[in-house]
Amino acid sequence: MSKANIFYAHSGGVTSILNLIAATLIQASRNYDIFDKVLVGKNGILGAINDQLYDTSYLSENDLSKIAQTPASIFGSCRYKLAQGSPDFAKIFEVFAKHNIKYVIYNGGNDSQDTTNKLWQASQELGYELQCIGLPKTIDNDLMGMDCCPGFGSAAKYIATSTKEAALDVKSMAETSTKVFILEVMGRHAGWLAASAALAQNNSEDAPHIILMPEVAFDANKFLAKVKATVANKGYCVVVASEGIKTAQQEFVAASNSVDAFGHQQLGGVAVNLAAMVKAELGYKLHWAVADYLQRSAGHLRSAVDVAQAKALAEHALAELANGANGKVFAVERLQQANYAWQIIANDIEIIANQERSVPKNWITADGMHVTQACKDFMQPWIEGESQPSYKRGVPDYFTDELPLV
Amino acid sequence: MSKANIFYAHSGGVTSILNLIAATLIQASRNYDIFDKVLVGKNGILGAINDQLYDTSYLSENDLSKIAQTPASIFGSCRYKLAQGSPDFAKIFEVFAKHNIKYVIYNGGNDSQDTTNKLWQASQELGYELQCIGLPKTIDNDLMGMDCCPGFGSAAKYIATSTKEAALDVKSMAETSTKVFILEVMGRHAGWLAASAALAQNNSEDAPHIILMPEVAFDANKFLAKVKATVANKGYCVVVASEGIKTAQQEFVAASNSVDAFGHQQLGGVAVNLAAMVKAELGYKLHWAVADYLQRSAGHLRSAVDVAQAKALAEHALAELANGANGKVFAVERLQQANYAWQIIANDIEIIANQERSVPKNWITADGMHVTQACKDFMQPWIEGESQPSYKRGVPDYFTDELPLV
Repeated sequence: MSKANIFYAHSGGVTSILNLIAATLIQASRNYDIFDKVLVGKNGILGAINDQLYDTSYLSENDLSKIAQTPASIFGSCRYKLAQGSPDFAKIFEVFAKHNIKYVIYNGGNDSQDTTNKLWQASQELGYELQCIGLPKTIDNDLMGMDCCPGFGSAAKYIATSTKEAALDVKSMAETSTKVFILEVMGRHAGWLAASAALAQNNSEDAPHIILMPEVAFDANKFLAKVKATVANKGYCVVVASEGIKTAQQEFVAASNSVDAFGHQQLGGVAVNLAAMVKAELGYKLHWAVADYLQRSAGHLRSAVDVAQAKALAEHALAELANGANGKVFAVERLQQANYAWQIIANDIEIIANQERSVPKNWITADGMHVTQACKDFMQPWIEGESQPSYKRGVPDYFTDELPLV
Repeated sequence: MSKANIFYAHSGGVTSILNLIAATLIQASRNYDIFDKVLVGKNGILGAINDQLYDTSYLSENDLSKIAQTPASIFGSCRYKLAQGSPDFAKIFEVFAKHNIKYVIYNGGNDSQDTTNKLWQASQELGYELQCIGLPKTIDNDLMGMDCCPGFGSAAKYIATSTKEAALDVKSMAETSTKVFILEVMGRHAGWLAASAALAQNNSEDAPHIILMPEVAFDANKFLAKVKATVANKGYCVVVASEGIKTAQQEFVAASNSVDAFGHQQLGGVAVNLAAMVKAELGYKLHWAVADYLQRSAGHLRSAVDVAQAKALAEHALAELANGANGKVFAVERLQQANYAWQIIANDIEIIANQERSVPKNWITADGMHVTQACKDFMQPWIEGESQPSYKRGVPDYFTDELPLV
């Protein structure tokens, strides 16, 4: 294929290693004769629809190394689903043609890979010469066909570390004060993030004592009984709960029918509702935290394995794109668990588009409120190693410059 | 004074550098002939009342260095106020006599220093030969007579870093998704922790855009107008709010009259109530996080200045105790702001007992919803420098062994 530009974009929720993938692709693309510039969509695929593309050729090596340590996305992301037969496709291919774009790298979760897949199919139908590949991304770790999703290992490291730290706090105070601590983490459909809190344990007696995942129907009576038993045995109880847990009747525990002091409809939240339940039924003094964006933007606490896999994915995908890869999504495959080893493989995009991977039932303990040793052993490599950003004036030195559009 | 044991304890909420102070005292005490052992109260002053003292002479140098990087308190803390004329005093002095304790070092906030003060007065009334000194501790930074409270700088660094990271996340998503992010931080009476979020800014246009502190009466209309204007100007708005903010009618914004989906009285929370207000009145998609214990137990993100001050305080206080200090509390005094310099000084305990220091009114912006450059310049040195723990299996390697009682 002739020398042409690459369109790169991501979509969906951001992660702490998303800019690292972008920076690695941009840097590596400069070593290939067939690639001209990497043009990045402002706010994901919307940038292609609206002809708003960032010209990354202005970025210096220093810029790229600062971007690589910056969490979230300096280019913006979006929540936007390309509908089959949408007029968006015509706009996109018009923009691609205008900017001599013949390569697409789309970085995202299962919804995003659906976009990649549709783009690739549309290019074939329209006879537009295009090579289109996908890179996975999600802190939910719910994509099929891979060992670990880039971004998950760092979020998991944040959750395991935060759980370990907060548990020490509760333990210190439990005799005369707080006895129960509840941490709400992300995960609407898959419990991987909640499960990662188990990596805080030195042994199975340690906090967290209860992990609530969407894979198991929430049973208030069983939950309260386990909180009570744990406080009786250990003096305190640490709970980590996925935002997406539901009762057997398919009602979200985070749901709220209530109104706040100002008369507004409450937004709910798993932690606040579990806390109200424990307070009302057991009477313990308690505290609760909601990690929310902090867990997926924690650039100060990235996993070195996650960082290494993100870099390798970007470099490998670019090399394969140069070799003619098309309609593929690249992923990490586990070669061995003891002395963790992995490699990058290519899958057909269909494998991950619109599908979800849950925590396997046989990795959830019999009571439905924790994970097994096998699950912990499997997840352990993903959080190994530290990858610290540089700091300036006491906070991480992230890239915050405004970028020029083409 | 003859060779005797030191009683050390802390009380109130824990911090990420409290064990560092304890470990430094224990280590340093071994260099003085007049000090025998450091005996630490299990759960603070309760350990003295109940004759439950940890014998720290079993701790090796390796143990102490691991303890020094562990957040919260391995000895336990308590929320317990010694009442004037309580029978507790008799028990305490009985335990002191039994264990040849002639030195007391009490580590805590204004309530705790009230305890130190009462102990010292009681020893004088009882004619019990006792040297009694205090060390400050609180993440609230609300103690009088000092530059910065040990523990605050690290919590402030955590809040500034988390705010900076979450703001990048919101900015990435704002075009098609979340436009407002609210972070709830601690601080029932003083807004120092919320104010520290301002240290995330490179310049005054950056996030956080709104800081709500207990020093200013919360005005819902002004707040909503500023959120709306910020979203209009910048595309997104980041809010950091103290848990203790109140309306002009002295009602806590965190209060809740409502009932959750399960029929339990809601516990409220500032973030969830502000979020409901923004959602109802402005309709923006939003996210909110509650840092809670994560902010004060974040041993993975300690300020090097905070760590240095905590060590210096412990070493200096011990040297002064050996020199006969009595009825004093030791503190950090600022010598100069540019090229930040400080020293350790001794104050009378009365100066900090039962008093509170707020964010000065002239450091709060005219709209009451941010802090001035002078405030930021003053706080900046407190979060400078990093002091990373060692890691094991992907999480910080904290001390979790069970300790032997005397």
